[in-house]
Amino acid sequence: MAPQVTVDSINPKVIECQYAVRGEIVILAQKLQQEIQAKPEAYPFQEILYCNIGNPQSLGQKSITFFREVLALCDHPAILAKRETQALFSADSIERARKILDQIPGRATGAYSHSQGIKGLRDTIAAAIEARDGFPADPNDIFMTDGASPAVHMMMQLLIRSEKDGILCPIPQYPLYSASIALHGGSLVPYYLDEVTGWVLEVSELKKQLQEAKSNGITVRALVVINPGNPTGQVLAEENQKAIVEFCKEEGLVLLADEVYQENVYVPEKKFHSFKKVARSMGYGEKDIHLVSFQSVSKGYYGECGKRGGYMEVTGFGADVREHIYKLASVNLCSNITGQILASLVMSPPKVGDKSYESYIAERDGILSSLARRAKTLEDAFNKLEGITCNKAEGAMYLFPRINLPKKAIKAAEEVKTAPDLFYCRRLLNETGIVFVPGSGFGQVPGTWHFRCTILPQEEKIQAIVTRLTDFHKRFMDEFRD
Amino acid sequence: MAPQVTVDSINPKVIECQYAVRGEIVILAQKLQQEIQAKPEAYPFQEILYCNIGNPQSLGQKSITFFREVLALCDHPAILAKRETQALFSADSIERARKILDQIPGRATGAYSHSQGIKGLRDTIAAAIEARDGFPADPNDIFMTDGASPAVHMMMQLLIRSEKDGILCPIPQYPLYSASIALHGGSLVPYYLDEVTGWVLEVSELKKQLQEAKSNGITVRALVVINPGNPTGQVLAEENQKAIVEFCKEEGLVLLADEVYQENVYVPEKKFHSFKKVARSMGYGEKDIHLVSFQSVSKGYYGECGKRGGYMEVTGFGADVREHIYKLASVNLCSNITGQILASLVMSPPKVGDKSYESYIAERDGILSSLARRAKTLEDAFNKLEGITCNKAEGAMYLFPRINLPKKAIKAAEEVKTAPDLFYCRRLLNETGIVFVPGSGFGQVPGTWHFRCTILPQEEKIQAIVTRLTDFHKRFMDEFRD
Repeated sequence: MAPQVTVDSINPKVIECQYAVRGEIVILAQKLQQEIQAKPEAYPFQEILYCNIGNPQSLGQKSITFFREVLALCDHPAILAKRETQALFSADSIERARKILDQIPGRATGAYSHSQGIKGLRDTIAAAIEARDGFPADPNDIFMTDGASPAVHMMMQLLIRSEKDGILCPIPQYPLYSASIALHGGSLVPYYLDEVTGWVLEVSELKKQLQEAKSNGITVRALVVINPGNPTGQVLAEENQKAIVEFCKEEGLVLLADEVYQENVYVPEKKFHSFKKVARSMGYGEKDIHLVSFQSVSKGYYGECGKRGGYMEVTGFGADVREHIYKLASVNLCSNITGQILASLVMSPPKVGDKSYESYIAERDGILSSLARRAKTLEDAFNKLEGITCNKAEGAMYLFPRINLPKKAIKAAEEVKTAPDLFYCRRLLNETGIVFVPGSGFGQVPGTWHFRCTILPQEEKIQAIVTRLTDFHKRFMDEFRD
Repeated sequence: MAPQVTVDSINPKVIECQYAVRGEIVILAQKLQQEIQAKPEAYPFQEILYCNIGNPQSLGQKSITFFREVLALCDHPAILAKRETQALFSADSIERARKILDQIPGRATGAYSHSQGIKGLRDTIAAAIEARDGFPADPNDIFMTDGASPAVHMMMQLLIRSEKDGILCPIPQYPLYSASIALHGGSLVPYYLDEVTGWVLEVSELKKQLQEAKSNGITVRALVVINPGNPTGQVLAEENQKAIVEFCKEEGLVLLADEVYQENVYVPEKKFHSFKKVARSMGYGEKDIHLVSFQSVSKGYYGECGKRGGYMEVTGFGADVREHIYKLASVNLCSNITGQILASLVMSPPKVGDKSYESYIAERDGILSSLARRAKTLEDAFNKLEGITCNKAEGAMYLFPRINLPKKAIKAAEEVKTAPDLFYCRRLLNETGIVFVPGSGFGQVPGTWHFRCTILPQEEKIQAIVTRLTDFHKRFMDEFRD
């Protein structure tokens, strides 16, 4: 008998799931890159400029020295007591590595940990959350995970019973959410962020969409909020967050707070507030609201995507439901210990008086101020282009400009059976080597077109991107202008 | 409104899923450990002896020096060129770290990699598979994962459409399989390993169970084989493997080969053969059989559970199905880079002539020969106990002895609404501090009782386990003997 697994016989939920961030445009970019390697004159550009994914170190961002020193020492503790180690590593990294190893049963960094992560590291994280928010945090509420994505999957797996269960998600959204909801067989209930007012999240819109979902027989179980926003880059105002918390409390919804960009705020008038702090400051405790906050080592100024560290803080669930979350964590045994250690480090970096403090602050602020400059440069450049409007990047790592495509361009796209934003991005890539992700991968108001551009290429590349994009856009508009 | 998520309203598949390896007995063990810490005289033993999980480094097994040197250098490449580094690290670890960094785009160990893992590391792994099997391996068939568990989940997610889709699994089995099938809503189709002949996998049994499943309206999609066996410790004979391959080919089943214990073979008369090698040696290629092999850095002599490295080699699927597997891998971005590096290292350890070769071999052989001794000591001890029979541990890290419990013990268990094997294990833990997992967590022929015991406690502890177990068992039998 011939093998039987074909596309017609695999799980239809897998077929349905989409993940644009690594979709068609990126596969085309990889193909072009290989062609250029083989034949440098194949295209009118010598390199691919990846602006498609929040992967800072792939674009030259340096890791924070102190964090890497500690990781190296924890990987090979045999050198801790050697004289040469003191010449190679900072004194406080040696001290921190010793402290972390003392927190690990048997100092065994090669052992599976507790399913939620090493208790001592969760203590460190809980203390850091307390210091950040001014409200208590319990290490037993922390579930350490391989980046934030598995944590999101775990919550979707817990909450979704069938396609009748809905999850309120922002549009535009980070496609992890739509992908995870599709894989678990639920329904994505969209709520639209208001582009005109700077991607504001209106509670009236949440209410409207919740009612509509209910009238369609959908039980809405949770609300996803991404703050700072991905792909939209806005930072929520505290008053707005209060109204969101109130809405979730009134409707009995789980608030799934994607707070992985909590360190990425670039404008002085905005500040990150965790949803837990906001809820607690309103007097709402464990019994009032189900609240899950996601954090990751991949973002912030650290940008350690490859280490796959992260955690979720789970509050407001009964002990019996918690046991099932624990069981889900157990089935995968534990998250990787290097990522766990790094998660504790990013939540508890060097402090005033520590030997590494000044160099750490210089590295951190260098990265954050450069990101702010890059965001502003790109935002200004987009806003100078004909038919393009771009909201301010208050935070996160992205811009999500809107492009008013000429009718002729839309028609040309339709002729090749391509979404107009994909058509634009494909042309851009083929002519300049710049990789943007079409807005359709994130969702957008029907009839509007966008793309997502990261602010991550190093500063010396940003100017090249602006120049190439500006030239391309002018040619494109000249070709298609109505 | 009060929060709405209760046990009655979460995904029933999550409720159904069981994972005994970290279940009731282990939670009790953790409780006892805390009590002993608070009050050392609380129990007639001073420490908990964990024999419940394949987690070698938690029980004192040392990591392989060369592997950890390379990991440390890759975490903090800034020290590579320093003079002191040559005093602290072996010359070939420095060389290997440089080579690995060269294989990583931008030398960025903190960047997300290709969704399948870093291409250069997959090249290394494919070359090692080729050297092991004598048949070609393609780096594009390798999907690197955070340990083997996520790879197993990915395949279950791909194959299971509904409860009408079945997966043939050995009984006893490693409960990752039953848990994953439950979470994805499929049906576990059991086939029984024959305990009397040393846990032999009879193809006649596969055929019988396949027919029965078909007559119940189940579409069987895949066969799981764990070789060497978990929890049963047997190593399949090559002829047996050929018959299994033939069966899968005839029935069009995906062969899911759990080969994570490939380095753990303790008897000279048995040898590990990968299912891919067996299939290719029979002349079966890509077009003849769907074959997935799972490997992990957690097992073998390396036992690096906490690093969460592993891969699956996926062969025999059409390009269109492969795209969907790739998409599933993409949704989680990539596995952790430290784990990826380690996976390449365990598949390509130091070679004759390398500076670290001799110390590496001494460490490796020291661990493997000690494991073999520990397996034999425990096997012999079990077989001396009244009413207990134990097959040979040919490989893996476990023994799965059968206990013929007296009727009176079974009755006593029923009176406290407990499975008899759980009753035995709970008594054992409370009286001796030894942690075994009851056989019911792995599945067993109805009316038979077993427990799983790892061979991992260090040799000086093994004798204590044997003594305490022997004393306990005698008391238990004296109390309950018919």
